[in-house]
Amino acid sequence: MSDVVQPRIALGVSYDGSAWQGWQKQPHGLTVQDTLEAALARFAGQPVPTVCAGRTDTGVHAAMQVIHLDAPVLRADTAWVRGVNAHLPPSIAIRWAREVSPDFHARFSARARSYVYLLLEDQVRSPLWAGKAGWSFYPLDVEAMQQAAGYLLGEHDFSSFRASQCQAKSPVRTLHRLDITRRGRFVVFSFTANAFLHHMVRNFVGALTYVGRGRESVQWMADVLAARDRRKGAPTFAPDGLYLTGVDYPAEFDLPLHDASDEIRFGV
Amino acid sequence: MSDVVQPRIALGVSYDGSAWQGWQKQPHGLTVQDTLEAALARFAGQPVPTVCAGRTDTGVHAAMQVIHLDAPVLRADTAWVRGVNAHLPPSIAIRWAREVSPDFHARFSARARSYVYLLLEDQVRSPLWAGKAGWSFYPLDVEAMQQAAGYLLGEHDFSSFRASQCQAKSPVRTLHRLDITRRGRFVVFSFTANAFLHHMVRNFVGALTYVGRGRESVQWMADVLAARDRRKGAPTFAPDGLYLTGVDYPAEFDLPLHDASDEIRFGV
Repeated sequence: MSDVVQPRIALGVSYDGSAWQGWQKQPHGLTVQDTLEAALARFAGQPVPTVCAGRTDTGVHAAMQVIHLDAPVLRADTAWVRGVNAHLPPSIAIRWAREVSPDFHARFSARARSYVYLLLEDQVRSPLWAGKAGWSFYPLDVEAMQQAAGYLLGEHDFSSFRASQCQAKSPVRTLHRLDITRRGRFVVFSFTANAFLHHMVRNFVGALTYVGRGRESVQWMADVLAARDRRKGAPTFAPDGLYLTGVDYPAEFDLPLHDASDEIRFGV
Repeated sequence: MSDVVQPRIALGVSYDGSAWQGWQKQPHGLTVQDTLEAALARFAGQPVPTVCAGRTDTGVHAAMQVIHLDAPVLRADTAWVRGVNAHLPPSIAIRWAREVSPDFHARFSARARSYVYLLLEDQVRSPLWAGKAGWSFYPLDVEAMQQAAGYLLGEHDFSSFRASQCQAKSPVRTLHRLDITRRGRFVVFSFTANAFLHHMVRNFVGALTYVGRGRESVQWMADVLAARDRRKGAPTFAPDGLYLTGVDYPAEFDLPLHDASDEIRFGV
C-alpha cells in the first residue's frame, strides 16, 4: 500500500443502454461498468473501481449518470475525458470530469435523481427509435395521465410500483416531479424523486398508459397506490424509452451538473 | 407463367441504416433490400422483387424510402404493413402500403428526393446519437453556411460533389432547397433536389462545415462548384446523420406521402 494521495474524481457518463446488460458489473462482463472500468484501467495502468449514482437496468440509457473513483494517477480533468473516451466504444462516453472533495460519494451524496421516459405514439413501430423510445399504438389522453400522475406526487409507500426483486429496505420514496407533455408524435414523462425503487419508473409508465388509453380511470391510480400491492398495477413498461437524465448533489460539491434531458431530445 | 393480374403496390419504408450495408442487394445479403425481400417472400410465399426510389449507402437511414413491387398475392393494404412487419427486424419497418396504377415506378416516377443531415455540435461525442447524427467538435457559423449554400441552389454541374464511383450519366442536378437551421445543440441541413449524385449530400455537408468552422470562406464554395473537380472540395462527411426523408411523385399517383423529417426529429 502506498500513502500517496488519491484524489477523488467525479465523472459524468452517458451511454446507450440498448447495447449493454445494465450498469452493474457482472461475471459475463457485458455491462457498462465492466466496460468503463476496463477503459479506466487502460488509461490509468491499474484497476480503478467505480461507484455510480443510479444503477440502470438492461436497456436503460443514461444522458447523465454520475460516478466517482479514487484516482491512482494524477491527470488533468480534460485528460480523464479524452483519455478514457479513447478506450470506450461509441455507445459509452465520459462527458465531463471534476476533482471533488474526498467526502463526495456518487450514490450517498445524491439528493435526487431525474429520469425521462420517451414514448412514441404511432400506429406502426419506428425503426429510427427502436431501443430508444417506448411505443404505444393506442392513442393516449395526456390530460387524463396528468391527473392520475397527481396522486403519485409527494411521499408515499410505492410498494405497488416496486419490482419483486427490489432490494431497498423501505418502499417509501418522495416523488418531487412528474410532468407529462406531448411533443409531436411523442409523449414525454419527466420524473424526479429523492430515489427510485427497482422498476419504479417503468411501472409508473405502465400504469399511466393504462389510464391514457382509457383502460382504467384516473381514480384507479389512487387505488393502485393505496393498495401497496404490485399485483394491482399494470405490467412493467419496456426499458427502451427510459433515460437517467440527471443527479442532484448539494451545491458545496460544485459539480458541472445540468438537466441533461436535452441530450435525448432533438433541439429542445 | 400465369396471366393473373399482379397489382402494383407502393410501400413506404423506414430503416436504421447503421444496422445495414446500404439498400442495394448484395451477395452477402446484409442489406436492407435483401432483408426486406426475404420478409416479403415469407409473407407472399414466393419471391417478390422490389425497386426503390433512392439507393442509400451503408450507414444512411430512411425516414421515408418508397419502393414498388408487383404483388403475386392479393392482400389488403393494411395486411402488407402488418404482415410484412411481422417478418422484419426492429431496424426496418413498412410504414404504409398502397395499391398504385401499373405505370407507377418508384424510381422513374419520382420528381424529387429530400434528405436531412443531422449534425451534433458538441465538444464530446454523444453515445445517445452514435450512428444517428454526424458530429462536429468545432463550433459552426450557421449564417456563413447559409450564405455558402446559396451558391449551390439551382441547376448546376455538381462534379465537385460527386463520388468517383458515381454511375450517373450526367453530373447536372437541380437543387431546389438547402436549408440550414440550428436547433439546440444540433445543426439540421435539409436538402431537396430532382435527384442526387453519389455522396452528393455528404460532400455538401463536408464542404459546408469547412465554411462553418471558418476553415474556408463563403466565396470558396462558389469556387469549388465552378471547378467541377472533386479534389477541390472537402472530405465526404460521415453517413451517420443522413436520412432520406421523402420522395415526391406526381399527384395522380395519390400516394400517402408527407414530409417524414419529423420521424427523425423529436416532436417538431
